[in-house]
Amino acid sequence: MERLLQSCRIQSQLVRECLAEFLGLYIAVLIGSGAAAQVITSQGTHGSYLTMQLGSALGAVFGIFVARGVSGAQLNVVWSMSLWLLGRQPWRKVPLYALSHLLGAFLGAATVYLQYYGKISTVFISFLSFPLMNIGGHLSVAGPNATAGIFCSYPADHLSVWGGIVDQVVATALLLICCLAVEDRRQGLLPDGLAPVLVGALILTIGLSMGSNCGFPLNPARDLGPRLFTFIAGWGEEVFKAGGGWWWVPIVAPFVGGLLGTLIYELLIEVHHPHTPQSPGQESEAVELEEVVVDSGNNR
Amino acid sequence: MERLLQSCRIQSQLVRECLAEFLGLYIAVLIGSGAAAQVITSQGTHGSYLTMQLGSALGAVFGIFVARGVSGAQLNVVWSMSLWLLGRQPWRKVPLYALSHLLGAFLGAATVYLQYYGKISTVFISFLSFPLMNIGGHLSVAGPNATAGIFCSYPADHLSVWGGIVDQVVATALLLICCLAVEDRRQGLLPDGLAPVLVGALILTIGLSMGSNCGFPLNPARDLGPRLFTFIAGWGEEVFKAGGGWWWVPIVAPFVGGLLGTLIYELLIEVHHPHTPQSPGQESEAVELEEVVVDSGNNR
Amino acid sequence: MERLLQSCRIQSQLVRECLAEFLGLYIAVLIGSGAAAQVITSQGTHGSYLTMQLGSALGAVFGIFVARGVSGAQLNVVWSMSLWLLGRQPWRKVPLYALSHLLGAFLGAATVYLQYYGKISTVFISFLSFPLMNIGGHLSVAGPNATAGIFCSYPADHLSVWGGIVDQVVATALLLICCLAVEDRRQGLLPDGLAPVLVGALILTIGLSMGSNCGFPLNPARDLGPRLFTFIAGWGEEVFKAGGGWWWVPIVAPFVGGLLGTLIYELLIEVHHPHTPQSPGQESEAVELEEVVVDSGNNR
Amino acid sequence: MERLLQSCRIQSQLVRECLAEFLGLYIAVLIGSGAAAQVITSQGTHGSYLTMQLGSALGAVFGIFVARGVSGAQLNVVWSMSLWLLGRQPWRKVPLYALSHLLGAFLGAATVYLQYYGKISTVFISFLSFPLMNIGGHLSVAGPNATAGIFCSYPADHLSVWGGIVDQVVATALLLICCLAVEDRRQGLLPDGLAPVLVGALILTIGLSMGSNCGFPLNPARDLGPRLFTFIAGWGEEVFKAGGGWWWVPIVAPFVGGLLGTLIYELLIEVHHPHTPQSPGQESEAVELEEVVVDSGNNR
Repeated sequence: MERLLQSCRIQSQLVRECLAEFLGLYIAVLIGSGAAAQVITSQGTHGSYLTMQLGSALGAVFGIFVARGVSGAQLNVVWSMSLWLLGRQPWRKVPLYALSHLLGAFLGAATVYLQYYGKISTVFISFLSFPLMNIGGHLSVAGPNATAGIFCSYPADHLSVWGGIVDQVVATALLLICCLAVEDRRQGLLPDGLAPVLVGALILTIGLSMGSNCGFPLNPARDLGPRLFTFIAGWGEEVFKAGGGWWWVPIVAPFVGGLLGTLIYELLIEVHHPHTPQSPGQESEAVELEEVVVDSGNNR
Repeated sequence: MERLLQSCRIQSQLVRECLAEFLGLYIAVLIGSGAAAQVITSQGTHGSYLTMQLGSALGAVFGIFVARGVSGAQLNVVWSMSLWLLGRQPWRKVPLYALSHLLGAFLGAATVYLQYYGKISTVFISFLSFPLMNIGGHLSVAGPNATAGIFCSYPADHLSVWGGIVDQVVATALLLICCLAVEDRRQGLLPDGLAPVLVGALILTIGLSMGSNCGFPLNPARDLGPRLFTFIAGWGEEVFKAGGGWWWVPIVAPFVGGLLGTLIYELLIEVHHPHTPQSPGQESEAVELEEVVVDSGNNR
Repeated sequence: MERLLQSCRIQSQLVRECLAEFLGLYIAVLIGSGAAAQVITSQGTHGSYLTMQLGSALGAVFGIFVARGVSGAQLNVVWSMSLWLLGRQPWRKVPLYALSHLLGAFLGAATVYLQYYGKISTVFISFLSFPLMNIGGHLSVAGPNATAGIFCSYPADHLSVWGGIVDQVVATALLLICCLAVEDRRQGLLPDGLAPVLVGALILTIGLSMGSNCGFPLNPARDLGPRLFTFIAGWGEEVFKAGGGWWWVPIVAPFVGGLLGTLIYELLIEVHHPHTPQSPGQESEAVELEEVVVDSGNNR
Repeated sequence: MERLLQSCRIQSQLVRECLAEFLGLYIAVLIGSGAAAQVITSQGTHGSYLTMQLGSALGAVFGIFVARGVSGAQLNVVWSMSLWLLGRQPWRKVPLYALSHLLGAFLGAATVYLQYYGKISTVFISFLSFPLMNIGGHLSVAGPNATAGIFCSYPADHLSVWGGIVDQVVATALLLICCLAVEDRRQGLLPDGLAPVLVGALILTIGLSMGSNCGFPLNPARDLGPRLFTFIAGWGEEVFKAGGGWWWVPIVAPFVGGLLGTLIYELLIEVHHPHTPQSPGQESEAVELEEVVVDSGNNR
């Protein structure tokens, strides 16, 4: 079997990275949307608002563990953009990763639909009102649309478009500030494997403190991919019309927020780190731990 | 006392490993089924759906901590099979471990029954309907059967056999992909003790996002052992007849899912890791940390 | 100020250890009973069954962090006994630690009473029935006694004395098996600070899977100290009469369970670890990490 | 872009530290008050008491991660005072950090208000009674004031001023004892990144066991900053008059508790650590791990 697998080997570093990003976001969506599906289809008997957020968080954790040794597990095109702006990766990677994310999120949503098909297709066809629906659906649409919130974000009734933009800009800025801080080696050298867990905790944090306005999409591809799936799978045009044409907000606003968050962290913290003479000995001492990891993925 | 204990020493590595696998799954079932028993017998006053899933997760964590230094704490025959397919252990271990698991799960269920005997025997004999029962029981059977879901998995009413197979194949594939990623040293060298915690988080994740269809058995021996116990202990033939003869699904489907998950991770991630010249110095540097652990169990 | 503090310095290692054990259990009870007080006095609006168990778990975690560098933070006389039986500490420490624990638990309960005095004294004097009371009180006693369950354990109505003994023997055996596994260096060398967190997770685990019968006391001094406080503070003789004279069960049964758990772990796992020639170099390599810690407390 | 950022570089170590403390507490309040806002404005459908406490805890965690490499992330003037009393930092830092905290907390509250403006301004203007309000509001004030508890602390109805002082003294003493224990290198050398997580767990712990009396402010600037914001933003004088002029208690009591906690930890644990000859070799071995971190922030 090992020999069979070896024959499928791909040499290109970029293709490998796109495969890893694809699988990483596939897993994140499979877990995250699955947790929402479980709570919504069981009408709250097999979970709660907290378990949905835990699902999103743990989905991110395992998505990162699957891809981190190959591509660094960026999993969000806003994060890819920020790394490019800071000169830490070439711009070519940004669109390619975004495409991989889109495909991964699309197929992740499809798998969740397959797994919950029995419940969604029989129970929710003519299901009219449900207290948890305003997590991400809109109550006025009967039938299938009431479960659209499993897959992608919809604004709460009270939220204006400007309110949604503010919400997403603040939330994505927070995400980027904290991710940059966790990744900043001048702040401290985390033991391997702690950073993914912290990013998961960050997703949970945002879900618990900024999730009620529009379900904290934060990630353009993670929101658009499943929305395209629901468009095809039977929810129809409504997924783009709902919330006053909401669909473009989680695509545009996170980029603005990501830029803002990057600027805030750089201007308040990172640029002020004292210059180091960059003697090779001193540097290698500092990065010893992580280098092994990076090595194992890239240079060997 | 120390001398007395020393006289019981066993030299055979394989027997030691089977004892460890036995104790590991015994503890996992004692905790996991105990958490379900607490919620179900207290009718939700001493726990909730989330605490049941936390119980399964923490049961796995401590089951792994008990056995990891001796046998690696596989605790699931699907994982043993995957390691054999990848050429990482001899096939002989797979059936022997499976038998140890079966015995551990059987006795774990028996201990839970003993601990909750007072409540189960007095309160639930003629207990007819209970909102949490569809976690793993089926509501139509009165009396003792309504507590059978404490010990092993039963499908929800809406689930067809094909639906159950799909659910278990997806869930076990997810389990294997993430376990392979966590164990993959090319992804990064986790500090000792983090991997068991991550596997526990993975069990929690699956419980929160794929637990409502049939209670995420994932593990043939962990499901069959307690089912045999309930068969003997008074629930009778119904444990095999329930759910349209459901009992074989959690035995067969996880193997299919495990194979699928192994293939996906290998084809998308692991085979593409660049070849390393395997110079002994480089390799030993990379595995330094874990080797100490493995050493302490096996070679000394 | 520093000079003032230095004048209070105690040289005796044993007195230092007893002070640390005292403060450790004081903090564990202050947090653990505080979490129960918050849920019970707020009648569930400021917490739930899960938050009470989290309180017990986090109380143990911080109790251990306060004392671990001085005495190893045993915090439970059953664990002290087990370490003595395994020849890892002199017997003299066992009763001295137990007295420190008793005093710490007594004062911890007193502090919780002080903090919640306003609520307990005004609201609960004539409070008659409350759904969460059977966590650890008994419903038939009106008034103050209905809050006695904040401080120490009482059996649920359905539990016989033998049932309670079985419950506590199983739970304490589980506690000891897992603690011995976490502390067993042959299983792996945990990074410093992970073991206390795992012990806290273990307390949470036992609370979630074995907490509904009698509130998982597990620890003789932690149960007796607060019971003595409630006896003095106004709950009266009832704290010893309740549950058919329940008070001695959480004192005796944990010792039996502790012995059983120690035997199980030793016979199934630890005695079978292969002999090592104990070359000093090899040994020192294995314990390098923890030695530093122990050193800093004892030998410097 | 990198060059543009570099032109904003600040050389002064003290200004850098104040910026980091500002951003750290800004993030802690943004997350912590956001979690309260989500639960209160959604009337419990998008969270629970537990998620609010998790929000406070995770806010502290990420606030610390943002600032720890620059200023050590003190984030609480009581902790700054304690470090000064123990001779670990000059007194000049205490008021400067306090001002930074005040500004960060004020702006954090303003951002939460902006994010939840839609919901607060439309739904809660004439909202009269709400079961969760007594978390930190006072029920007698109609309209906007019922949401004041999102931003800062108010006592529960049953709490006297003396009760509140006792509550805050005990809670802050517990905070300081545990923080000193976690930071005490003689207790053990935690891996980098674990201490912030433990401090977050400590905040959660205090929230779960001492949160129902007055919402565990613990931190003078974190309470006063948002209170000033609500004073300006439309809640008016009532924020200072409420609870019988409660506002000064969370400013004064934490200092008393902080002093008490510092004394308890020093007198029971730290002063008794055996003297070490302080040979440079031995010392440097012990602090190796953390030194790298401190270095990266300060000395390079």
